[in-house]
This record gives sequence, structure tokens and C-alpha cells, in this order.
Amino acid sequence: MTEYPTALGASSLEKITLLGQDLAGDVMGKVSFGELAFWLATQRRPAPGETRVFEAVLAALADHGFTPTAIVTRLTYLSAPDSIQGALAAGLLGGGSRFLGVTEDCGRFLHEVLAGAPLPADDEGWDALALETVKSRREAGKFIPGLGHHVHKDGDPRTPRLFEIAAEENLYGPHLSLFAAIGRVHPQVLGKTLPLNGAGVCGAALADLGLPLELLRGFALLARTAGLIGQLAEELRNPVANEIFLSVDLHNASVPPEPYGGSHG
Amino acid sequence: MTEYPTALGASSLEKITLLGQDLAGDVMGKVSFGELAFWLATQRRPAPGETRVFEAVLAALADHGFTPTAIVTRLTYLSAPDSIQGALAAGLLGGGSRFLGVTEDCGRFLHEVLAGAPLPADDEGWDALALETVKSRREAGKFIPGLGHHVHKDGDPRTPRLFEIAAEENLYGPHLSLFAAIGRVHPQVLGKTLPLNGAGVCGAALADLGLPLELLRGFALLARTAGLIGQLAEELRNPVANEIFLSVDLHNASVPPEPYGGSHG
Amino acid sequence: MTEYPTALGASSLEKITLLGQDLAGDVMGKVSFGELAFWLATQRRPAPGETRVFEAVLAALADHGFTPTAIVTRLTYLSAPDSIQGALAAGLLGGGSRFLGVTEDCGRFLHEVLAGAPLPADDEGWDALALETVKSRREAGKFIPGLGHHVHKDGDPRTPRLFEIAAEENLYGPHLSLFAAIGRVHPQVLGKTLPLNGAGVCGAALADLGLPLELLRGFALLARTAGLIGQLAEELRNPVANEIFLSVDLHNASVPPEPYGGSHG
Amino acid sequence: MTEYPTALGASSLEKITLLGQDLAGDVMGKVSFGELAFWLATQRRPAPGETRVFEAVLAALADHGFTPTAIVTRLTYLSAPDSIQGALAAGLLGGGSRFLGVTEDCGRFLHEVLAGAPLPADDEGWDALALETVKSRREAGKFIPGLGHHVHKDGDPRTPRLFEIAAEENLYGPHLSLFAAIGRVHPQVLGKTLPLNGAGVCGAALADLGLPLELLRGFALLARTAGLIGQLAEELRNPVANEIFLSVDLHNASVPPEPYGGSHG
Repeated sequence: MTEYPTALGASSLEKITLLGQDLAGDVMGKVSFGELAFWLATQRRPAPGETRVFEAVLAALADHGFTPTAIVTRLTYLSAPDSIQGALAAGLLGGGSRFLGVTEDCGRFLHEVLAGAPLPADDEGWDALALETVKSRREAGKFIPGLGHHVHKDGDPRTPRLFEIAAEENLYGPHLSLFAAIGRVHPQVLGKTLPLNGAGVCGAALADLGLPLELLRGFALLARTAGLIGQLAEELRNPVANEIFLSVDLHNASVPPEPYGGSHG
Repeated sequence: MTEYPTALGASSLEKITLLGQDLAGDVMGKVSFGELAFWLATQRRPAPGETRVFEAVLAALADHGFTPTAIVTRLTYLSAPDSIQGALAAGLLGGGSRFLGVTEDCGRFLHEVLAGAPLPADDEGWDALALETVKSRREAGKFIPGLGHHVHKDGDPRTPRLFEIAAEENLYGPHLSLFAAIGRVHPQVLGKTLPLNGAGVCGAALADLGLPLELLRGFALLARTAGLIGQLAEELRNPVANEIFLSVDLHNASVPPEPYGGSHG
Repeated sequence: MTEYPTALGASSLEKITLLGQDLAGDVMGKVSFGELAFWLATQRRPAPGETRVFEAVLAALADHGFTPTAIVTRLTYLSAPDSIQGALAAGLLGGGSRFLGVTEDCGRFLHEVLAGAPLPADDEGWDALALETVKSRREAGKFIPGLGHHVHKDGDPRTPRLFEIAAEENLYGPHLSLFAAIGRVHPQVLGKTLPLNGAGVCGAALADLGLPLELLRGFALLARTAGLIGQLAEELRNPVANEIFLSVDLHNASVPPEPYGGSHG
Repeated sequence: MTEYPTALGASSLEKITLLGQDLAGDVMGKVSFGELAFWLATQRRPAPGETRVFEAVLAALADHGFTPTAIVTRLTYLSAPDSIQGALAAGLLGGGSRFLGVTEDCGRFLHEVLAGAPLPADDEGWDALALETVKSRREAGKFIPGLGHHVHKDGDPRTPRLFEIAAEENLYGPHLSLFAAIGRVHPQVLGKTLPLNGAGVCGAALADLGLPLELLRGFALLARTAGLIGQLAEELRNPVANEIFLSVDLHNASVPPEPYGGSHG
């Protein structure tokens, strides 16, 4: 008979453990939610500074107003108010490559660059590595994940703040170092100055915390779950979803079908 | 032109605000994730004691091992590893009436009882209200949400702990009082002693915090999101989903169809 | 070792069966998709007339233009174009009590009335049963599911058509009979004439086909899956989701938070 | 004011149109569900032969027994029986790269090969193109989508059947031709004979029908929606989800946490 091992939740008649701890005695009332989320993902208890950087990232990603994910959650709640889980799940499903994916893409990208090069010893070294990186991406016709923002063209205020918090906690590691260097050198290659965006710096910071790269998007989704609950709470008190729906539905224009396909050959 | 008002995330060229705060300067590095989630849901900043009770609830609900939600997230990841958001969303969709719904059901139930009665002045008064409540539920052939547990038959360890934390923080309000009284008096009516379960006491505590009743299930889902990320992290390192799948698939027995229906008349 | 019995898909080295049939030889190329969907849900092969009524229902429910479900699918695709399954799933999650639920509610409602009364023998008998039903709903302060439509105030064109098709196929059973009678008599009680809507008549027709009442919403969702694929196909060729998103985002008005809660007592 | 054009569903006080047709008069009772799904996706009405091939594909993909998607739908229904839409959506979320993605991957792969080469005139020409294709994939260390099956090692019975149906309907186009040629020549390169699998041939057939390549996975999901409704119908009558859940939960083994990460540098 197969046994499925797990170090997460387990319970017996008298006791519940989580991560090997006594849930009631040692976790509840003693471990903050951010700390617990980190611990669950890594199976190691983070130091207070790690929790602070982690929670700063979650705050940065929790809610960005009327994003597609927020609109989707509100519309789904309008349509199926009996199922809060459906409204939240629908919103999270927008957390893919385009809107919430930058965090993961940036963390992975920085990690790949670092895996293929010796660690620079100083800022000059970082700048050289960054310069080479930006050049080779440009030659390959690829963007740098985390570079550029459609609103904060002169700088995303989250970026310097997260650099600062990581430095305060002594967690300014190679991913953040490389990302900062990219911010310094890219104008030499691209001929214009783009901001390092908040989603990108979050990916760099999470990677420096040693979190699993495959799950960086997951942390953005955790943050967004809190944001979407906020959206639902606001929708409950000041509903706008029906107006949004009607603004789309009433402005539609019925047009004749445009036949498609029939042959790809 | 319609305007959609929101007090959540907003941004301009130079600034990002969240809940009216400067996100970078006043939230990141200063507000814990649990505190932020509470704030987003209520648009008021919680006191430290409120955050502590809230985070104790989230810890109590984060992960319970190989629940249906955890299995679903792992199987969905097995099947569609390119979409972390899909694996998390699929798991959350199990957060309905049966497995994660007790928290909401219990909070709402207690609230309805309280809405129909004057607040008791002392334990004797609470016991009287609880007795009347249990009796009338029994006469109506209905269960009491939050009463009973299939594993922790002699008591759920989370329950006394959450009462204790709420008392320490001076947040032991009417919902917890009524729930505790139900725990004391129900054997007189039911003829047996059932435990007050952890999911139920969480609902009572969230209701005493003044959180929107419609969203109590949402907080259980927020907690579970962290737990499901933990499940995915473990699955990445020690995969079991394929074995689970095969244990079901290989033990299936093909049987002939059983025709159904044709008339309801 | 537990065996899980199933009469659905099964395969061996050389053969694949579905519903006890040889999939390749007896199903592919011989069974239409509507027929197969009916068969899967009931484990009995429908007669051609049953398939025709069933497919008429699916056609009636497949797409209603820019509904919340359609908008949600388009916005989710905008946000996560790498995950078609996520975009479709998000849209389906709007298929709850309000927008797609009428079909199920109406079928169940009619079924409950029929379960509590002897089958009328003629139109007069149906009218009497309907009159009593409408009166008792009205006294209970409840709506009649399937009665009324916000656009088709003078009559929903799908309703007479589905009555007609069911009659042609000799499948005009008790649920449709009761629904039709409600259409005839309700003005006597309500003092105004409301249309029998298309979602409602679909529920009645599905119930007359003997399909499981618990799954009536499921058939609406199956129909809508085809519609949502149509929405995605149109979005791919003539994208509007970004404009919809911007129309909401740009018209938002940042307002101060409104603190909520703190006490329910 | 923006107008959102659509050729799908539209309605006025008296009329409902779908794809420019009168829904009640010209679609209901006249257009089968498979035909309608094709029409919605392409905005052109398919010929009867196209519908037959399309429906054969849907039949081939509708249900494969206790797949992860089926287990997920059953477990989600167990956990949240109030939300059929959630159970179906959760199941569909497993329709990603691994289990349901082969159809799309194969269609796209064949299309890319065809886009880069002149159309061969005869079987010899197809074999040459296929040989070159298999060789270059092998050199690149990549698999051929649609080649190989873990159960049907001696041949997937759906594959010859779909070739046959397509030939009968005169819809055996370049994608199927290339796929068949790959089946003939790959042993020369790989040194072993692998079956052309059913999911792959479905992708080839859908591509030959001129359906949008971006949505091939969507058709697999449409087919699977019907299958998942079948799974739910069976679960309602012969429940197994709780046993599946318990078989996993009771066989788990609590193990100590294994700390992860801390540095990627």
C-alpha cells in the first residue's frame, strides 16, 4: 500500500501538527500569516528579516485597482453570488503570463543569467554582467523581464523601496544586484531609460530569499487573493459590477459573421 | 460617463496608493500581510490584537494535509504544470459548503441568533440563549454548524487555543460567547458531548472581529491559498500526484452502463 | 484494494470503450456530439427525438452576447493568454445562481410541484394546478423561476419554439405542461402578463427528457462552453478585451476608504 | 463611446440572433450541437462532412475514465456540492500541456512544418518531408507530438478510424497526410515503432478542418466538458469520491519538514 509522505498538516485524535509544529500551541497566536506562508513554501522557518522582505513583496502585489483580475472577480460574483470560491478562483485565473507573470519571469531570468556566470565581486562587475546580458537579449530580439512600465514611466516607486528594505535586512543578494545593475546600464544599449518595475523587483527579491522559482507566480497569486477579497468586500458595499457589465453589453454592436478558415494548407 | 469608485489600489505617474496610503512609503515594510488582508477587507486598519486573532484563524485553516482541495491542486498541477494559477484555482474551488464552508456557516448562524435576541449579561444568560438555540435547531431537525468533528472526537485543540487568544486580546465578543455556551449546554439537549470544532470557532472569532459575514469563507480560502502553495512546493520536491492518479486509475473496474431516467413524471 | 466502478471510458492494450461501446468502431463517426453528451449523462442512448430537443436546448443557451461570462473569458484570456483552459473555466464560474441558474431552478421547481400532486388529465387540470402553484408562491413572497425577462418583455422567442419542437418529438411532458399552464394563468394572480423565458423553458424540457435535476445547470454550462469558445475565437480575430479593461480602469475614481465593521454585536 | 462589435448572440425586444441567424426559427431544432460549436468558432456554417469529422474528434476526446481531470471534478463536487460550475471548472483546469494539450501541440507542430515547406504531391513526397521532420526533431532532442502512447503501444484504435472518417468525407488534408507519413517513416530514424496516438490525430484532423490553431485545446475541453458531466452523473448515482479521498488521506505518512532554499546564488 502506497504511503504519501507529507510534512504539512497532519492530525490525530488529540493533536494537530503543521510543519512538524504543534498547531495550537506553537503556531496559532505566535506565527504571522506571512511568516507561515513562507514556512509552508520552504519547510523552513524564515528569519524576521526574511518575513519582512516577503511581506513587503506581498504588499506590493496585493491590489492594483481595476485590473482584469479584479473586474473578473466582481463580474463572476455578480453572476454567481452563491460561490465566493468561484469568484476568487476566476480572478486568480487571470494571473498568467501577462499581468501577474512578470514576477516569475523576472526571477527566473535573473536566475538563469546568474547560473551561467561567476558571481561578480563589485558594482563594476555587476555592471559588466548586466551590460553583456542586456546586449545579448537585444541581439536575440527579446525583452528584459521587469524593465519598463506603462504608467510609471519615470520610475516605479515600489522598486527603490524594496531595494531599501532588502538592504536593511541584509537580504540584498545576487538577483537584486543584477537587477539593479540592469537598471543602471540598459540605457547604454537601448538608447533610452526605462524604469525597473515593481513586479520585476519583487521577483528578484523573492529569488534572493531562496523561494522556489517555479512558485514565484504563486506568491503573486497569494498576494492577489487578499486583494480580490478586498475587491469583493468593496463590491458588496458599493456594487459596480452590474454597471460594468451593462456598459459593455449596451455598447455592443451586432455585426455580420466573418467566416474563418476552411484551409490552413 | 460612469465612474467606478474604489478605495483600493490606484496609481499615477509618480505614486501608487493602496487604501489611501502611500504604498511604497507607508505600507511596504511596515504592514504585515495578515494586517493588510484585514485592512483590504474592511478598509480600516486593524489594531495589533485584531491582527493577532485574525492571523491565528488563518493559521488554523491554512492546511489540513491531504484534503480534497490539496489532492485537487496536486493532480491539476500534474496535468497542467504550465499553469500554477490553474492548480491553485482548482484547489480553491473545493472550498464550498462542505469542507471549508463551516467557518462561514458557523459565523452566520451565530450572527442570526444574536440578531434575534437581547445580549445576555452573564454566563447564565449565555447558557440560556444557547440552550434555547440548540433546542430549536434540534426541533427543526437541523445541525449546529461548528459542532462535532470526525477526527477530534474528544476536542479540537484549536478551539480552546483560539478562545484563549481572543480573550488575551480583549476580542472575546458575543459570537465566541454564544459558541462557548453552545459547547457547554448542548449535551443536555443532544444527550452526548460533541466537540466545538476549529472551523466553527474560526467563524465565531472572525465574526467578533467585525469582518463581513458574506466573506468569512473568503478568509478560509486566503488561508488555504498559502496551504496550497505549500502543497505545490512539496509536490515539486517529492511528487506523489502521479501515484495518486494511478492508484485510482488502476483500481477502476469497468462496469456496464446503468440507464437512468426517461421520466420524472 | 478498493475498485472504483465506472461505465464511462475504459481502455486496454487494443481497445477503448465508452459507455460499453467500442469507441472507434461504434461511436466515432456514428454518434453526434449532442447525442453523446446525453448518453454520458444518463448512460442510456437517447432516441433521435430526444437528441433533437436536447440540442435545441443547448442552442438556446450557447451564447447570449456580452454576458458577464463572456466578458470574464475575454478578460482572462487577455491577462493569461497561455491558458485557454483558465479562460474557459473562469467564464464557466459565472454560471451560478443568477445568470445560468434559471434553467436548473425552473426544472427543479416544476419537479417539486409535480411530486406533490396527481398528474392532471387535461388542460383544465393543468391550469388548476398552475393557479394553485402561482398563488402559493405569491403568498410565500417568492418568484416563479422562469417567469419574466428583462429584454423580451412581450415574449421570449425561444419559448414557443421549444414547446413546438418538444411537441413534434412527442416529448411534451408534465414539466412543459405545467410551465405552459403557468404562462396561461399567472396574470389572474399577478395582475400582469410576464413572458415565460427561454432559460426556464429549457429547464422544463430537460426535466421532461428525464435528465438528472442536479445537473441541469451542467447542461447550460456545456452549451456555454461552446459559446465561450466562440467568444475566444472572435477575441482572437477582433480583440476588444483590452478596450473593455481600459474603459473600466480609466473611469475609476479613487475615493477614501470607508471603514467597515468592528462590531456585529 | 466605444462599441464592441460581435457576430455572436444579440437580442432585441422581439428577436434573438446568433451568428446572424434567427435563433428560434433557424437554429433551434435545425442545427446540431456539434455543428453549432464549429459554427461559433469559425463564424461559418460547416458542411455535413466537416461536422462529422469534428464530432468524431469530440467523441474521441470526451472521456478517458479516471483521468486526473475526472478525479478532480469528482473530488471538487464532494467538497463543494453546491457548485456544479466549480466542479466542472476545476476539472477543465487540468486540461493543460500534459493531459489534454497533445491535440493542440500536434496540430500546431504539423502546421509549422507545413508552413515551411512546399506541399508534397504524393505519398513519396510526404514521406520525404516526414523523414526530414523526424530527423530534425531528433537532432534537436525534441519529441514528435502525437507519437507514442503509454497504453496503446501497438496502435491507438482511434487513429485509423479518424483517418478513415476524414477520407470518407474528403477532408484528409495536409495535416493528416503529414501525420500519417510520420507514422510510416519514424522507425527509420528512431529505431522503434511508436503508435500515432488519438489525441495527436485529433489535432491533425481539427487543423485540416481549418479551425483556429490557438483554440485546438479548446475543442478538447469542450469534449471533456461533456465527459465531466458524465463523471458527475455517475458520481451522483454511485459515489466514489469520498473513498478516493480517504484512500489518499489514510495512507499518508507524516514526515519531518525538509528545509529548502536560502540561497540560489
